[in-house]
Amino acid sequence: MFRRLLSYEEAQAILEQSISPGPVGVERVPLSDACGRILAEGLVALIDVPAFARSTVDGYAVKSEDTFGAEEDRPVSLGLCGHVGAGETPRVTVQRGKAAGISTGAPLPRGADAVVMLEYAAPRDGGVLVYRPVARGENVMKAGSDISKGETVLEAGLRLGPSEVGVLAALGLREVAVYRRPRVAIISTGGEIVEPGEPLPPGKVYDINSQSLGAAVVECGGEPVNLGIVPDDRDRLREALGRALSLADAVVTSGGVSVGPGDLIPGVLNELGKPGVIVSGVALRPGKPTTIGVIRGKPVFSLPGHPTSALMAFRLLVRPVLCRMAGRREEPPPTVRALASARMFPTRGRRTFVPVRLTLDGLGRVLASPVPAELSGAITTLARADGFIEIPESQQFVDPGDEVTVHLLRPFSH
Amino acid sequence: MFRRLLSYEEAQAILEQSISPGPVGVERVPLSDACGRILAEGLVALIDVPAFARSTVDGYAVKSEDTFGAEEDRPVSLGLCGHVGAGETPRVTVQRGKAAGISTGAPLPRGADAVVMLEYAAPRDGGVLVYRPVARGENVMKAGSDISKGETVLEAGLRLGPSEVGVLAALGLREVAVYRRPRVAIISTGGEIVEPGEPLPPGKVYDINSQSLGAAVVECGGEPVNLGIVPDDRDRLREALGRALSLADAVVTSGGVSVGPGDLIPGVLNELGKPGVIVSGVALRPGKPTTIGVIRGKPVFSLPGHPTSALMAFRLLVRPVLCRMAGRREEPPPTVRALASARMFPTRGRRTFVPVRLTLDGLGRVLASPVPAELSGAITTLARADGFIEIPESQQFVDPGDEVTVHLLRPFSH
Repeated sequence: MFRRLLSYEEAQAILEQSISPGPVGVERVPLSDACGRILAEGLVALIDVPAFARSTVDGYAVKSEDTFGAEEDRPVSLGLCGHVGAGETPRVTVQRGKAAGISTGAPLPRGADAVVMLEYAAPRDGGVLVYRPVARGENVMKAGSDISKGETVLEAGLRLGPSEVGVLAALGLREVAVYRRPRVAIISTGGEIVEPGEPLPPGKVYDINSQSLGAAVVECGGEPVNLGIVPDDRDRLREALGRALSLADAVVTSGGVSVGPGDLIPGVLNELGKPGVIVSGVALRPGKPTTIGVIRGKPVFSLPGHPTSALMAFRLLVRPVLCRMAGRREEPPPTVRALASARMFPTRGRRTFVPVRLTLDGLGRVLASPVPAELSGAITTLARADGFIEIPESQQFVDPGDEVTVHLLRPFSH
Repeated sequence: MFRRLLSYEEAQAILEQSISPGPVGVERVPLSDACGRILAEGLVALIDVPAFARSTVDGYAVKSEDTFGAEEDRPVSLGLCGHVGAGETPRVTVQRGKAAGISTGAPLPRGADAVVMLEYAAPRDGGVLVYRPVARGENVMKAGSDISKGETVLEAGLRLGPSEVGVLAALGLREVAVYRRPRVAIISTGGEIVEPGEPLPPGKVYDINSQSLGAAVVECGGEPVNLGIVPDDRDRLREALGRALSLADAVVTSGGVSVGPGDLIPGVLNELGKPGVIVSGVALRPGKPTTIGVIRGKPVFSLPGHPTSALMAFRLLVRPVLCRMAGRREEPPPTVRALASARMFPTRGRRTFVPVRLTLDGLGRVLASPVPAELSGAITTLARADGFIEIPESQQFVDPGDEVTVHLLRPFSH
């Protein structure tokens, strides 16, 4: 197979052309599970909200014209004709010269067109004195004024937060159609790795990537399916990848993509279906050995085995695709401007991402210091970083004191 | 009871003194459920990671001094004495003048102190030619160099993201101690509200707040317990609040705190235990009628019934407490600077929060326009807003063209 190192943008474009990532499906969930999910269809109101004209205050329902001219020292006197409580169906009709007591949220009785607030009225001799005029419609929320029947209230693709969930409840809905979470099968490869919780034999290390990549899938709105550890064996790998493709919408593997004799994944991918491998290495650091295949329209991402490289490659290549499969707009991570505290180099010809730690200097300026990177296999590199900076292929280096943009991995306040 | 309208800060201080909010408990969860949770105890490594010196590349394990002087056109010739694969226990010892093949991640065999990369070596006559010298320790990750046994690797209070979950896996852990999610009982009061999904009788409206406040609890890391709708009846309310206090860590009610005759909650709170009501109204708009009680050390927040007021009061008064009960640092919402597009007034003597919608003008400037606020009961107000601005009690108004800080309710990119 001809092997060319693609640029980051080329790799993304090839992937885009091969799979056109979009939502994987729709499911209905109860409102109590809807927070944080993505609305799958535009929502048209089938009722008016409110369904009737409501009082927005406690007071007296009146004909507004009866109050015209009322003043603090020359109140208008109206007769009382009943009371409407919240949730009741009014049984009175307000005639000229009359008023009906009304509670907040209660339907406006027939004949009335406004409500006088309790504060501007006083009961007197079985009637009520009104000390201020009200205009037509004052203190009344009209039928359909919050949501009108037939209106599209929420657009497809919207993330449902508390107020959107409130809108769904206002319409009387119990369930809502949201995009299904993409299922992402996760496979770790390698003969040297052991499940956490098991005893650790000599020469072995615990499997980190299944857990860290699973958490990264959750953060994109996906549902990880952990298929565990597969040894460097062609048949076992083929079987595991086949199973992954049959039960998931996407597959993420780690390990087994470098140049060593145990690196079987590209070959197995090409055996499993067309088009097979579409990206074989990307000019990134970390993440260079990343291989991407497409089989039965499903993307398979083979990431490096080093935990930090695997997570960075996930963020750069997998996350944008997964967010779109989840129906999410990918939110760019928040950034902060900082001053480089040390010289940083890109690796020749590769877009380079340098994990940095942020500190404040005596003048309150934010400094970005590279997290020691000699430990490329270290899981602690990213756990110790506050963010990372991106150095273009073409740039020679970042000098101490240069202003840099830091993409934050966690909130940073200063 | 003497009733004074407290300022926002006073209300917060009184609440703080009464309950000193902090984590409600600790539970153990499997790593696969740990993403997004808060670590409840500092994590001390019980093993070295890696547990042994590992090769970081595919190549040949050598004594570094044997390679000194090696050059492109004058390679050093070494004898081969075996191979160590990843996950194997080395059975060879590298003697002077010898090299052992080694895979990425494999343990360094005894006698060797460095690894020559495959790219700088070539097999020849049953031995190997080395074309570049390596320094002692080159391409080797020392035992404990990622994580040292005894080291505190993660601090209590940390939010577990993908890299932190990776650190836990690296230590071989299967479970982790995280703060328990605070249980928050949610009660809607009022005779006019009906469960979503039920038929809507005349004069009634659907219960919005149970769902929208439940979602707001989820966003703070809490677990809502929806106790449904309780009518404006003293005994039913007392019973519901008693049940809420027995099964939850905090209680949020909505409705029934204004000045109407159906407003029973403050009285019931004072009957239920000491100190009872501690805050009775706050100089906020919206949110003025908010009542806060403390019973058996648990906070009870009685929010206004209007859906938008209830959500804003939740954000201003409940959320900071709930985040701390969940063991979270409360992240301040992201903000954006914008130009006011219209005059906005605070309500006299009250800290005023105005929901605004953001647009871009022809010059690419961000404009903040108030969402029409005449519908104080409208649930759509916040769903239509991108954020809100805060106007201090002391300020007269915001003029069109004034620069304002918008607290974002949803991401806004420009």
